[in-house]
Amino acid sequence: MNLFENTALGITPLDQNTAILAKQRMDSLVKPIGSLGTLEDIAVKIAGITGKIKNTIQKKCVVIMSSDNGICDEGVSCAPKIITAIQTMNFLKGITGINVLSDFSGNDIKVVDIGIDAHLTHPLLIDKKIRKGTFNMAKGSAMTRDEAVAAIEAGIEITTQLINEGYNLIGTGEMGIGNTSTSSAIIISLLGCDIDDAVGIGAGLTPENFEHKKNIIKQSITINSPDSKDPIDVLSKVGGFDIAGLVGCYLAAANKKTPIVIDGFISATAALVAYKINPLTRDYMLPSHQSAEPGYKCIMKELNLEPILNLNMRLGEGSGCPLAFNIIEASLEIINKMATFEEASIDDDFLIDMKGQ
Amino acid sequence: MNLFENTALGITPLDQNTAILAKQRMDSLVKPIGSLGTLEDIAVKIAGITGKIKNTIQKKCVVIMSSDNGICDEGVSCAPKIITAIQTMNFLKGITGINVLSDFSGNDIKVVDIGIDAHLTHPLLIDKKIRKGTFNMAKGSAMTRDEAVAAIEAGIEITTQLINEGYNLIGTGEMGIGNTSTSSAIIISLLGCDIDDAVGIGAGLTPENFEHKKNIIKQSITINSPDSKDPIDVLSKVGGFDIAGLVGCYLAAANKKTPIVIDGFISATAALVAYKINPLTRDYMLPSHQSAEPGYKCIMKELNLEPILNLNMRLGEGSGCPLAFNIIEASLEIINKMATFEEASIDDDFLIDMKGQ
Repeated sequence: MNLFENTALGITPLDQNTAILAKQRMDSLVKPIGSLGTLEDIAVKIAGITGKIKNTIQKKCVVIMSSDNGICDEGVSCAPKIITAIQTMNFLKGITGINVLSDFSGNDIKVVDIGIDAHLTHPLLIDKKIRKGTFNMAKGSAMTRDEAVAAIEAGIEITTQLINEGYNLIGTGEMGIGNTSTSSAIIISLLGCDIDDAVGIGAGLTPENFEHKKNIIKQSITINSPDSKDPIDVLSKVGGFDIAGLVGCYLAAANKKTPIVIDGFISATAALVAYKINPLTRDYMLPSHQSAEPGYKCIMKELNLEPILNLNMRLGEGSGCPLAFNIIEASLEIINKMATFEEASIDDDFLIDMKGQ
Repeated sequence: MNLFENTALGITPLDQNTAILAKQRMDSLVKPIGSLGTLEDIAVKIAGITGKIKNTIQKKCVVIMSSDNGICDEGVSCAPKIITAIQTMNFLKGITGINVLSDFSGNDIKVVDIGIDAHLTHPLLIDKKIRKGTFNMAKGSAMTRDEAVAAIEAGIEITTQLINEGYNLIGTGEMGIGNTSTSSAIIISLLGCDIDDAVGIGAGLTPENFEHKKNIIKQSITINSPDSKDPIDVLSKVGGFDIAGLVGCYLAAANKKTPIVIDGFISATAALVAYKINPLTRDYMLPSHQSAEPGYKCIMKELNLEPILNLNMRLGEGSGCPLAFNIIEASLEIINKMATFEEASIDDDFLIDMKGQ
């Protein structure tokens, strides 16, 4: 077996016993049962993931997979392809949205060239380039099956190394002009959803270009006939290196029992592919925000997950993750630090004069 | 004019010019226009509130109004009335949900006795007690009109003092067994909404007790016939001291051009009353989370505001505010620290080799 198969097949279920104990502790805290809603659910889920009732985030990191998409030749995007390279360099300069939000949340970022159509050099750029961009999926397969597996394995290697270095909360990010088109093509192929439910305006298309984008996505699916039962076939025919790399991140996080946060539409598409490879991966995922791209909803319905933030964001880059990290850490503080009813009743050293009750 | 009238009538509109300049800066940052969604809107709104394009939160505070409700005599709540006093002391001991979340977010809390039905002493407890709990609104007016105004003025005084001390982000919290009943009665009286859209299970009622709660709320409205055109009449007849105190917080924050965060259902009810007193207050409010109580939605629809968090929370205490504070501060970091396209193009010192494009 190769690294991909080993990782995917080595994923085991959540530790239900620890999750039950965490739920019991949550129910014993000084609040009405369930009144902290999703904050309670997150802490219980993470207990099931790690096998410990109390968890603390030591180091957290957003992995940003950057790559180009051959489909851009068809004019499906409102931004030129070179923006992938330019914005990737901007990540490394520390001046973009994900940088500012990461600094605020206190997480690191790792920027990966997994297939940018340019030669970039920077001491902090992780070179995992498969090829300088995928082929144009409107004319044939975006990549070979071997390339898809290689990109997944790049994501596995990076995430496994991060976890080995002590990172215990991972976020997913991406940069790749054209990757809302590949994401839409993947979810239509895997879920059979309607094109109008799966395709959005990306970074801001005009109505005319939006119709063109839908036609090109339809054409790409028709030409490639991806096998809906074979997620690697779908990924290689109508996907991108960025999405494939993130699939590897999800597989490795689940394999290493580490919570991993879904950012927006493209990250969620990778989460869906990982789920189709091994449904157990779903239990290790935490969604961040409700993306403004319509296809996001189809994915969450399939994964039976509910995003915690509703911010109408559609930036990508992993920008939802630092915000979600804050909520996740708050939920861990609740289970770690709130008093139980038993603890609260001890040491009642201030006077409560109930006269007149 | 008294403090209440002075404060309410002294509220002026947002600074639209500064908001426009903030929007222009937001649109010049290295991202697709609008792609950070609500994060962009929040920063622009706060620029309009303060009259400055770039803002930094110096000190932030959740004000928790604690008081008892006479309606508890009718058995509308699943918790005994004494919990108001006990949990208020727990706030001061630092062991509750709002304490843990506030420590995490780095905000202070101020705990106010505005009408607890017990005599509490603690060096950190702010004594603004109007009376030991309201009268039973199912049998007559919960308080006099003068008491309602006095409670509002208590909220004005506390919030004004906080702002004078340098707090520039305020949150609203409450503790008062029975206060989902008063909140439901207020919103039905002010908005004419259906009882099934306005009443929820509070801290966790059984179906039978839930029906009873709805009947008692209907009875309270019938007996008091509050004047839907007169928010103070509604507040005094079917409200509570906690809600009235929070109305004062909203009025003072708007008067002092300071952003103020709505927590859940009860805080939102107070926001609605403040809005009915002076609609300009709405522009100074930032909602935090979508409360699990159904009436919350009616209020947001009337205020035309959209909560940013979807956490299925129904704790109260102001617990949504620290989480929202984080998002708000993240939005300010975006406008303060992200590079503009112009700045990004300067100093392009790393090689991008575009050969092969």
